[in-house]
Amino acid sequence: MAPRPTALLSALRAVRRPRLPFSPQNLASLRLFTTTIGRRAPDLSADAKKIKLTSASYPDLQRDPRFTQLTERHVAHFKKLLGEAGVIDGVTRDATDDIQPFNEDWMRKYRGESRLVLKPASTEEVSEVLKYCNEEKLAVVPQGGNTGLVGGSVPVFDEVIINMSRMNRIHSFDEVSGTLVVDAGVILEVADQYLVERGYIFPLDLGAKGSCQIGGNVATNAGGLRLLRYGSLHGNVLGLEAVLPDGTVVDDLCMLRKNNTGYDLKQLFIGAEGSLGIITKVSVICPQRSSAVNVAFFGLESFDKVQQAFRAAKGQLSEILSAFELMDATSQRLVHDVRQTQKPLEGDHPFYCLIETSGSNGDHDYEKLESFLEDVMSREIVSDGVLAQDATQAKSLWSWREGIPECLGHWGGTYKYDVSIPLSDLYKLVEETQARMEEAGLVGNDDSYPVVGVVGYGHMGDSNLHLNVAVRRYDPSIEQVLEPFVYEWIQSRNGSISAEHGLGLAKKKFIGYSRSETMVGLMKNIKDLYDPNGIMNPYKYI
Amino acid sequence: MAPRPTALLSALRAVRRPRLPFSPQNLASLRLFTTTIGRRAPDLSADAKKIKLTSASYPDLQRDPRFTQLTERHVAHFKKLLGEAGVIDGVTRDATDDIQPFNEDWMRKYRGESRLVLKPASTEEVSEVLKYCNEEKLAVVPQGGNTGLVGGSVPVFDEVIINMSRMNRIHSFDEVSGTLVVDAGVILEVADQYLVERGYIFPLDLGAKGSCQIGGNVATNAGGLRLLRYGSLHGNVLGLEAVLPDGTVVDDLCMLRKNNTGYDLKQLFIGAEGSLGIITKVSVICPQRSSAVNVAFFGLESFDKVQQAFRAAKGQLSEILSAFELMDATSQRLVHDVRQTQKPLEGDHPFYCLIETSGSNGDHDYEKLESFLEDVMSREIVSDGVLAQDATQAKSLWSWREGIPECLGHWGGTYKYDVSIPLSDLYKLVEETQARMEEAGLVGNDDSYPVVGVVGYGHMGDSNLHLNVAVRRYDPSIEQVLEPFVYEWIQSRNGSISAEHGLGLAKKKFIGYSRSETMVGLMKNIKDLYDPNGIMNPYKYI
Repeated sequence: MAPRPTALLSALRAVRRPRLPFSPQNLASLRLFTTTIGRRAPDLSADAKKIKLTSASYPDLQRDPRFTQLTERHVAHFKKLLGEAGVIDGVTRDATDDIQPFNEDWMRKYRGESRLVLKPASTEEVSEVLKYCNEEKLAVVPQGGNTGLVGGSVPVFDEVIINMSRMNRIHSFDEVSGTLVVDAGVILEVADQYLVERGYIFPLDLGAKGSCQIGGNVATNAGGLRLLRYGSLHGNVLGLEAVLPDGTVVDDLCMLRKNNTGYDLKQLFIGAEGSLGIITKVSVICPQRSSAVNVAFFGLESFDKVQQAFRAAKGQLSEILSAFELMDATSQRLVHDVRQTQKPLEGDHPFYCLIETSGSNGDHDYEKLESFLEDVMSREIVSDGVLAQDATQAKSLWSWREGIPECLGHWGGTYKYDVSIPLSDLYKLVEETQARMEEAGLVGNDDSYPVVGVVGYGHMGDSNLHLNVAVRRYDPSIEQVLEPFVYEWIQSRNGSISAEHGLGLAKKKFIGYSRSETMVGLMKNIKDLYDPNGIMNPYKYI
Repeated sequence: MAPRPTALLSALRAVRRPRLPFSPQNLASLRLFTTTIGRRAPDLSADAKKIKLTSASYPDLQRDPRFTQLTERHVAHFKKLLGEAGVIDGVTRDATDDIQPFNEDWMRKYRGESRLVLKPASTEEVSEVLKYCNEEKLAVVPQGGNTGLVGGSVPVFDEVIINMSRMNRIHSFDEVSGTLVVDAGVILEVADQYLVERGYIFPLDLGAKGSCQIGGNVATNAGGLRLLRYGSLHGNVLGLEAVLPDGTVVDDLCMLRKNNTGYDLKQLFIGAEGSLGIITKVSVICPQRSSAVNVAFFGLESFDKVQQAFRAAKGQLSEILSAFELMDATSQRLVHDVRQTQKPLEGDHPFYCLIETSGSNGDHDYEKLESFLEDVMSREIVSDGVLAQDATQAKSLWSWREGIPECLGHWGGTYKYDVSIPLSDLYKLVEETQARMEEAGLVGNDDSYPVVGVVGYGHMGDSNLHLNVAVRRYDPSIEQVLEPFVYEWIQSRNGSISAEHGLGLAKKKFIGYSRSETMVGLMKNIKDLYDPNGIMNPYKYI
């Protein structure tokens, strides 16, 4: 499909029947957008050099001597329990290559040294495995799709990896209430596709949907792209089944929207990052699929204008607004550098926004969107923009937002900060971090500089910024500029050092910037209550 | 305002510009509805006979001897701490009349024997009070607006009442993000009014809004009328501050929509019914106020048609559907018997539904509603209906739903069951209960029969039924017919014995019908962790 620039008005007319005229001086700058979908960034893992061991990156961390070393006896027990299909054994034989993908994270930042991967196929098997590990004091790390960003789903030392990919059944779906029940290992996109065929969608969407698992999404309380519209998993997860370290099955797989019978214990497992137990099944309330979805992509001249656009979108698009995403100039430049596909807009702008609407009546939605576009253009809030005309174009526009994390990793690695700060201050953090990097002489276009660029993007609608530093190599000199600066900056604004990515290993020691000593103490009490031997995902979280 | 029956079509035309014609045979049955708002049911508490003591109604319950008896020394300490304004002292003087409203519930079903009401005015005072009570082993009952339905907010024996009404400040509101921070004692309607003036609404609405307090709403995880659209408090409460029995302040008053830094402990306090600590402040995300609100009221011939109407509303009204409420014939007859105001519809129907839409564009909403009405009328799903033409009429229609609990109490009392069961079986429980009551010869129109009527109504959109039995007097013969029948019936459908009202004292012993022994055991662990002396709201909950 060749690019075909057209004035927006005629484009709109071709699709539906616009009723409000745009002012001519603005219309010229809005044009129809068509392009091919960006290629995926190349997979570098095969040819790139080996990832540094986490134990080497974190020399302060020592293997906890309370944990038992794996022996042949343990492996034999697990093989008896799970069968050959459920065990990747690197204890009694060399299985380094087989286990490598489970030991490493996709960002190439963490590498553990586990010699055993277990793949239970049922809740009972998870229960037997955990009970045994708890009795034997074998440390474990629960693993879903291993798409996390904070090193939470890979071992630090020799923890047993409990991978949930074999628990991948969709159990039930109620077409009246919209309640879906799935195994923890079901891939998000698989569930979403299943729902789309039935007129529903999963209330969560995120870039890693093709490989992340629902159990992992729930365990990390993933936020993602639909939170603005459908709220968090704390509201959408109706029930779950989980296994505690002692093998106890927490049978809270409620399928009702309302159930006030005692403490809502399931909430503790949502966002506990596998530190209390392993989620085995999830029941979730799913919204109906919207028949009309529109996606617009804007260029804006300042962060102040971005805020104005957000307020206008919230006020005017109201119940049909389903995403308001922010991308800065550097993020889009770097995506373009990697993909070399045609950019959505012709010129360059300091900021870009992606707006999505979802509703049940295309004409109504279009009228609202049109009136919103007229408003933000006539007030010169938006400098340029395009509107997707079909699902392919919408997907392509989304790829400029969703492709950022993958493209940033192209040069070697990314320092990632996933923060929440009040909206007015949101982008200042990027500017100040950029200034500090330049001051330290770390940013440049050739290989002698470790830093490729400092970028900001994220879920504007949720005050959720992703501050990312794309680097050619991980380097202590960069870290010294970034930390504790970033955390202190967030703390001074009462922000969150982890909006949606979690703590994992990456942020374990920084929790104090977002939580009081009292709160951390209360959290430790919960950890001790459920996992007295501390075998669940050790060295991480709180 | 005199009633003015008019054909719906012309009524619609008068208000907005309808574009789709209704079929003439159906239109005649839909007419404009105007009436005065129903009077409030008479307040019977002044002249009615005294409420039975809870200790007499529950002879199996014994005062726990671990708890200290109140003495003058304790009272002196509290007076020093809170001042005279913060203490209603029935220990050193006779204050029975002053304390009576705090000892009794509004349903006239529970009466405690407390001789001390404390009214702390700050978090620090709550902390000092609880710490002292914990050290002295004085049992306490936290009390908000005392509008609960399960005896959770009044003492059973001589527990100290900690009433939160003096903590009633609205602290902050962010007009961009919609985040409201309030004291626990702020009355729901006060907060909602404050928000409405700023273009927002509180995400929760319920019949008791004029007197219930937000702290109590959160402590009981109140569901109410807006849950269908905005979800539960587990999703909408962003943060809270609470005081543990040992005086520790849980400072989790986060104002961010996303915050994945450790266990989400606040969730434990949402729905804990004051059994772990006292909520002192709440931070909540509030939705924007919809400029267009429409309310329709229908008569339907069967529960099957009600289900059809619900599916049609969900599918066609989609993102603007904000309530779908069910009322059966008996509930509406009893409201009419008490209020004697004109009924919304002329004829009688086995079932009634109230549908509300809320959206940002009145014309769009009206088109959707019109098309929905045409559909349900042409398919003869709905037999008769009216559409409110202004806010006064909308309020009046709502009063036929919201007024049910108050009117049912008119004859003396109500047995209340707040349950969740899969939609298809929802109304069967009412029919079977009615049949059992008739079989036992308990229902009739004169005073010799204890039961006035068995009614069903509730939040159809959330599968939440209120099974109510209006009675002239509370009587063991009625209870024997109701229990354990109702609970066993719910258990056999995997339902919830408490959808939104909580456990309190009323359902404490029935939790086993909705929760496994494992789950109850895990809950008790949490209780022991936070309240090792068991002083918080004893004899209730789990």
